[in-house]
Amino acid sequence: MQLPGQEEFEVSSACENVPTGEMDSVPGSDPSPDGPLDTGSRDLRVPKDPLLFIQLNELLGWPQALEWRETGRWVLFEEKLEVGAGRWSAPHVPTLALPSLQKLRSLLAKGLVLLDCPAQSLLELVEQVTRVEWLSPELRGQLKALLLQTPQHLIQSTGTSPCQGSAQPREASHDEEAPLKKQHQNPLKRKLPPEAEAGAVLAGELGFLAQPLGVFVRLQEPVVLGPLTEVPLPSRFFCLLLGPPTLGRSYREMGRAVAVLLSDPQFQWSVRRASTPHDLLAALDAFLKEVTVLPPGRWDPTARIPPPKRLPAEHKRLPSQLREAKSPSAQRGALAEDRHGRGPHIPNPELQRTGRLFGGLVQDVCRKASWYPSDFSDALHPQCFSAVLYIYLATVTNAITFGGLLGEATDGAQGLLESFLGTAVAGAAFCLMAGQPLTILSSTGPVLVFERLLFSFSRDHSLDYLPFRLWVGIWVATFCLVLVATEASVLVRYFTRFTEEGFCALISLIFIYDAVGKMLNLTRAYPIQRPGSPAYGCLCQYLGGNESQWTSTKPKDRDDILSMDLGLVNASLLPPPECARRGGHSRGPGCDMVPDIAFFSILLFLISFLFATALKHVKTSRFFPSVVRKVLGDFSSVLAILLGCGLDAYLGLATPKLMVPREFKPTLPGRGWLVSPFGTNPWWLSVAAVLPALLLSILIFMDQQITAVILNHAKYRLQKGAGFHLDLFCVAVLMLLTSALGLPWYVSATVISLAHMDSLRRESRARAPGEAPSFLGIREQRLTGLVVFILTGTSIFLAPVLKYIPMPVLYGIFLYMGVGAISSIQLTKRVQLLLMPAKHQPDLLLLRHVPLSRVHLFTAIQLACLGLLWIIKSTPAAIIFPLMLLGLVGIRKALEWVFSPRELFWLDELMSEKERSIPEKGLEPEYSFSGSDSEDVFTPEVVLWFNCQMLSHLENWNSGAGLEGSWPRPQSPS
Amino acid sequence: MQLPGQEEFEVSSACENVPTGEMDSVPGSDPSPDGPLDTGSRDLRVPKDPLLFIQLNELLGWPQALEWRETGRWVLFEEKLEVGAGRWSAPHVPTLALPSLQKLRSLLAKGLVLLDCPAQSLLELVEQVTRVEWLSPELRGQLKALLLQTPQHLIQSTGTSPCQGSAQPREASHDEEAPLKKQHQNPLKRKLPPEAEAGAVLAGELGFLAQPLGVFVRLQEPVVLGPLTEVPLPSRFFCLLLGPPTLGRSYREMGRAVAVLLSDPQFQWSVRRASTPHDLLAALDAFLKEVTVLPPGRWDPTARIPPPKRLPAEHKRLPSQLREAKSPSAQRGALAEDRHGRGPHIPNPELQRTGRLFGGLVQDVCRKASWYPSDFSDALHPQCFSAVLYIYLATVTNAITFGGLLGEATDGAQGLLESFLGTAVAGAAFCLMAGQPLTILSSTGPVLVFERLLFSFSRDHSLDYLPFRLWVGIWVATFCLVLVATEASVLVRYFTRFTEEGFCALISLIFIYDAVGKMLNLTRAYPIQRPGSPAYGCLCQYLGGNESQWTSTKPKDRDDILSMDLGLVNASLLPPPECARRGGHSRGPGCDMVPDIAFFSILLFLISFLFATALKHVKTSRFFPSVVRKVLGDFSSVLAILLGCGLDAYLGLATPKLMVPREFKPTLPGRGWLVSPFGTNPWWLSVAAVLPALLLSILIFMDQQITAVILNHAKYRLQKGAGFHLDLFCVAVLMLLTSALGLPWYVSATVISLAHMDSLRRESRARAPGEAPSFLGIREQRLTGLVVFILTGTSIFLAPVLKYIPMPVLYGIFLYMGVGAISSIQLTKRVQLLLMPAKHQPDLLLLRHVPLSRVHLFTAIQLACLGLLWIIKSTPAAIIFPLMLLGLVGIRKALEWVFSPRELFWLDELMSEKERSIPEKGLEPEYSFSGSDSEDVFTPEVVLWFNCQMLSHLENWNSGAGLEGSWPRPQSPS
Repeated sequence: MQLPGQEEFEVSSACENVPTGEMDSVPGSDPSPDGPLDTGSRDLRVPKDPLLFIQLNELLGWPQALEWRETGRWVLFEEKLEVGAGRWSAPHVPTLALPSLQKLRSLLAKGLVLLDCPAQSLLELVEQVTRVEWLSPELRGQLKALLLQTPQHLIQSTGTSPCQGSAQPREASHDEEAPLKKQHQNPLKRKLPPEAEAGAVLAGELGFLAQPLGVFVRLQEPVVLGPLTEVPLPSRFFCLLLGPPTLGRSYREMGRAVAVLLSDPQFQWSVRRASTPHDLLAALDAFLKEVTVLPPGRWDPTARIPPPKRLPAEHKRLPSQLREAKSPSAQRGALAEDRHGRGPHIPNPELQRTGRLFGGLVQDVCRKASWYPSDFSDALHPQCFSAVLYIYLATVTNAITFGGLLGEATDGAQGLLESFLGTAVAGAAFCLMAGQPLTILSSTGPVLVFERLLFSFSRDHSLDYLPFRLWVGIWVATFCLVLVATEASVLVRYFTRFTEEGFCALISLIFIYDAVGKMLNLTRAYPIQRPGSPAYGCLCQYLGGNESQWTSTKPKDRDDILSMDLGLVNASLLPPPECARRGGHSRGPGCDMVPDIAFFSILLFLISFLFATALKHVKTSRFFPSVVRKVLGDFSSVLAILLGCGLDAYLGLATPKLMVPREFKPTLPGRGWLVSPFGTNPWWLSVAAVLPALLLSILIFMDQQITAVILNHAKYRLQKGAGFHLDLFCVAVLMLLTSALGLPWYVSATVISLAHMDSLRRESRARAPGEAPSFLGIREQRLTGLVVFILTGTSIFLAPVLKYIPMPVLYGIFLYMGVGAISSIQLTKRVQLLLMPAKHQPDLLLLRHVPLSRVHLFTAIQLACLGLLWIIKSTPAAIIFPLMLLGLVGIRKALEWVFSPRELFWLDELMSEKERSIPEKGLEPEYSFSGSDSEDVFTPEVVLWFNCQMLSHLENWNSGAGLEGSWPRPQSPS
Repeated sequence: MQLPGQEEFEVSSACENVPTGEMDSVPGSDPSPDGPLDTGSRDLRVPKDPLLFIQLNELLGWPQALEWRETGRWVLFEEKLEVGAGRWSAPHVPTLALPSLQKLRSLLAKGLVLLDCPAQSLLELVEQVTRVEWLSPELRGQLKALLLQTPQHLIQSTGTSPCQGSAQPREASHDEEAPLKKQHQNPLKRKLPPEAEAGAVLAGELGFLAQPLGVFVRLQEPVVLGPLTEVPLPSRFFCLLLGPPTLGRSYREMGRAVAVLLSDPQFQWSVRRASTPHDLLAALDAFLKEVTVLPPGRWDPTARIPPPKRLPAEHKRLPSQLREAKSPSAQRGALAEDRHGRGPHIPNPELQRTGRLFGGLVQDVCRKASWYPSDFSDALHPQCFSAVLYIYLATVTNAITFGGLLGEATDGAQGLLESFLGTAVAGAAFCLMAGQPLTILSSTGPVLVFERLLFSFSRDHSLDYLPFRLWVGIWVATFCLVLVATEASVLVRYFTRFTEEGFCALISLIFIYDAVGKMLNLTRAYPIQRPGSPAYGCLCQYLGGNESQWTSTKPKDRDDILSMDLGLVNASLLPPPECARRGGHSRGPGCDMVPDIAFFSILLFLISFLFATALKHVKTSRFFPSVVRKVLGDFSSVLAILLGCGLDAYLGLATPKLMVPREFKPTLPGRGWLVSPFGTNPWWLSVAAVLPALLLSILIFMDQQITAVILNHAKYRLQKGAGFHLDLFCVAVLMLLTSALGLPWYVSATVISLAHMDSLRRESRARAPGEAPSFLGIREQRLTGLVVFILTGTSIFLAPVLKYIPMPVLYGIFLYMGVGAISSIQLTKRVQLLLMPAKHQPDLLLLRHVPLSRVHLFTAIQLACLGLLWIIKSTPAAIIFPLMLLGLVGIRKALEWVFSPRELFWLDELMSEKERSIPEKGLEPEYSFSGSDSEDVFTPEVVLWFNCQMLSHLENWNSGAGLEGSWPRPQSPS
């Protein structure tokens, strides 16, 4: 038996014994029953039956003017003709009445079943079909004429209302050729795959028939039956159900039953292979065995059920003989699924230890080398262009934010210019060399905090910062190389949701806290003018005025200032800027007051936050075409910044703005680009730097590798494998480079990298109305990242534009990101559960399997850890944060004494709930994934922010609506 | 045959030949299959089968320790035991596999069926059940022992996790008596009606049985079977399904099938009356005929379907013989439904012309007289207390708003004090006398506009306003009495949605426009301090200073002011209030500037709007117990006002506040309470007043009567009938009174009245998990209204508190109401459709039956009318607004030439969609009714606002989620 993944072994045969990651990414668990059409996985699947378009033509108008009218159509779901509205209904799950299936069975049992009918045209088919012995020749003639009559399709009558009540005249189309033209223009034709076949079901009451007539035909070769079906596809199946008008609409219902049966993949599979009429009935019976029955008193049979997010997995449904026929791909899919089902317990093959020095690195290089040419050729797709624009904006915003914060933290030793330059150089180099080129490198919060502490230390001990920092960088790079050599990256798999959520919640809270705190600081800098506050206390005094008189009267208290007699000459009431322009001096307690700024800043803050939030929701609204929605949603934060800047510019108030450099040179005056190795520091400092370097190494390692694990998660179905060791190696080399040039340090940025991948995801096109597109994988290549960083490098010249961005707007965007991150983790959901009465709690899988009290206990422990972290980060002990990270892993280990493995499986597992989930209506509808989370520009505040949005994504997969499932929901049409 | 409504004929026999309205309020169309339990409609229903609680006890643990465990329970819907979580699942629609039903059928066909088994205890029952001939005595003994074993119920193990993985020890309860105590404490027991019966289903694999054992027992008398069921109800049915463990879990599935069958009302009905085992099988077959079948490839059978908003109507389901057995109530219900189905085309009997002078009034008085005592006794319910508080707050806010606007419009001729006094007097009198005492009287927008125009006219022509107004009032009262005498109220039925939506949209837009406009006016009154604006140009000059020097230098332009040399003595920089206190004069261009007010006002405006909106949504969120949610939702606007006031008070800024009188006397100085009949006006003005009175009469008539029609809509199931003529009579009399006292004029206020009714609605208690409470009617009485208005009268002494309300907060509430009103009408939904791609449009019934182009045409015509109305209201022609109202009715009539009757039926009909609707999942989920709309305090702006929220309510009925249907939705648990 062929081993799973063997094809890929051959691809990467240049380096033998290299475990591949592709086994995990076999798209065999594709929820679409007919599999993706994308070429990327073509070779992994056996040929399948073509998709079937089924159309129900109903005979209407008896006994007056008989006509055929298409009243229903099926591909995966049913669409019903809304006769009055002249439109197709929304696709919905077809429902049947059991008696119509039973009546159909008995009609087919005694009817005419033609398997492999050799008819080549509609005429021949009609000839065959009407060869029923009990039909008199006259009746046969009438019937033939009727069957050859052109049916009315909706495409023929679009926009007109065919019912009697309509005020518009009906458009009659009796031209024999016209329908075919219109058939070819049918938009459905473009949607269906070219190999699709049609099935025509004709049903209705016909008065001149003495007894019911049931005919089922499978054509030997599919034949285009002229205007019989609305889409000019070759028909494979033909079914005729006519009878005397005694049974009401039951023929129509039987017709629907045939159509539903044919749209069922398993019935279709059986009928395509049936050799006797008995096989047909057996297939129908097999179908009946599997139907879901809803009781009549509890479910209105006329209710329309919207298409489920996920269809039942076909391989679980098929009986064993069929399953065998589908091997090996289905089996491999199931195998891969099983492996994923056990999730992180079985590590990626990339994370398995080789035992040789640099063994992992060598493996990584070998694995990636074979893909290198395709890493450029695979980028030739228009999707990559939009990805570049999107990630470029995120990267630039990120560089601005970090640049500003770094400049502040290091007193200008690194600034905005260094941030741009470093981002461009390091990012581009990483995209060219790294194991996972989809990664976007960036400054991150934890590193920023570390740098801030390092700078404070240097300043407090009068050290030359940049040379000291260079040595820290050298040591970190050394340690990282040791970690690469010893294959330490394999340890990362011990991180679980517990740890990551704790940090994520902390970072999000700090984000929110800082955003609000900075706003409140602004109101202190620009105080609000309460009645009686000294807004008016400012005079403009010109030279030559009696200055001594003013300054000599030292006020004792505030009241004194205000009531002080002035007795001035040569003074005016000019506002300070004007006064200075005219050569005067502004004097008085109110001269520093700038009114209106405080409230305007709060307004800008709120407006940018609310506007970004609102735009994010546009993406999942019903309004506008999907392109517009996607743009508005993807660029929500950019648009919110633009709105804030516009408002600010319109009113022209002196709000605090983003400070930007005006020249291309190191921000610190007087230093060259290359950092001198010692500067004014003593020589032994290069050795002492080993201590901070140890802590920083832990931080860099974790920050980098957890992100890498997330990006290489099996759920992304990456084909080209990961490169954990190679990535860390690249980070170490870049560490050396940036330290030498005095640029910021860079590691993988989770949020932007995920956004990058999200913007490059490949989805199957919907081939049928109501079908959700299925996720196929990521467009893995190196070009998008490279272009993004080249563009970032050239953006240094944009600096003069950036000074128009008011700080309150940026704070608003921080708040938006903080709220978005904290609302996306499962911890938040569990905290919300604390506020919900049990009966209103959402039907989370978690709650089905773990007692509520245990869920609350887990939540409480996480909150306690969060509180502890908050306390530590607020004290000078913040430098031990990297160790805290390890400590939390220990706490998680200790939890195994408190919770059973089953409970931890549900509470703490990072694995997708996909395999174990029951794709259920009403399950977490409000927690569903919104891809726009990931467009957030990544800005830091204190520590380990990197975990946050990762969890947002992972969580959302867990709710069955991740990359693979973020499509048509009631509120979020795609 | 008994006529529908005959009981009520007898009740009102004092006045013969009076058509009653009760026929319309027969609750026969109750969606709950078992009918409401409320006493209000008890006499109208035949006795029904008791509700059945069905429990599935599954035999687990074979072959080790056998134990019975309750794993499922049913009343209307299924609840499944989440074994791991130790909780009941959310109630869901039960789904079955067809084979389990078929297996069950064959098992029962050859099994033991005991109908009317006389067993009196579990022991006797077990004795009977085990009398199966093929059981050996030994097996029989084992089986008996097993059946007598106490089953595990969830109530016994709440909070513990019964699975092996749990870290908590399992609580074993083997005490024979303890379960019974716990059974009585079961919360489900309190929920179920006292007459409910139980059905116990025992199923599982039993290895020592050689063949399957199926027993179905209907007990002669229901017997409490000890701890067999979790609720200590007498059991009526008992079913035992055991067999060798060869079929997997199929016995459990068969047990579920029996439970689902028993929970089906029709199956239960049949089985309760079955006399032979054949009847049982026939009932099963009848069930199968009606089931809904979902195809296996398109629906995951394990998915849980949440309970539908509405269950299928039972009388539509039942075959004819059952339907006959249910008469007369079901037939009457159907009849009433049919009548409602044709909606406004058949007017209420109260709106049928008698042809006699004052015939309608006499009828009304007669109809209401018989209910008068009950109008007070029916108020003895705690619900009335909360209704009083709620409506009182709305009424007071309303009185404040209208008082302020009227005072402004009439230059103090009427003010806040008159508004309070008039509201109290007129409202209380109306509640005591009127035909529809649920109506809340109020000033309304249209009348306010009219009064404003009337005052302008008086002022422009130097007339004495109040005497002139008195004559207008006298004439209006006269005209209204003529309208009462001629029974003109019957004409109101020609109003349709088209007309009302036009006005509603207009009023909402004016609300929004004015709220925003007033805010912008504030920013002009308190200008923003841009850089260079003269914020600093203010000095405080004391007496004795060289004033002439200051004032003599007349500045030529702004620049001059600023640069002017001062040369002052005795001046200081004190802010103006402080300066005035110390006896100085504030001088300079900046003294009138109050900084920070503009932006703070905008903030208050936004905060009160957003907070009220957010609180409104709390009502339908999952958080907090329902009481808290209801309070937060109901008082959203009051809480938002309080928040705004708190913020304003905290910061202490000089925002503009609501101005209130401080003394109890007419606002206009120098007038007594009684208006002199002529004043300074010439005598002929009393005759000339007939002209404005004509227009005002049209307005009053329409404003009053359309509201009355809405309040008496059949959907409210009012029992005591309407009183259109009596209501108008009361309004006319109050018109006289308020004109004579110089108080505002009052008519019915739609929004508050609907809120009043909404707060008094009677609903059936949910008797089963997942059941939506059904609407039973309104608590019709006169006391709540009366108390509200008495409280309003005493609120005049609250005036000193009211001056703390900042105007921006009130503007924010206006915006909230305007947005709420405009987003609630169907026009808005149709305008939204213009922005939606066709495939994302919601599955509205409208769109199923009318072509999209026709829907858009109708929308466009409405928008054109709206534009025309906007233009007219913006010109001095606003006084012809009452005529415009009639004009719009004409346009609607003309539409009958453009649209077919069928299209107008769907586009314009006011009738409920209830009868013609398909209660469908996903139908308008986001447009569903939120009862909190109606808590909006009713405030005016220009014209005919009264229609707005009415449409909100009507719309929401149309979407099947009105008073009768505003319960458990995915996002809105009740």
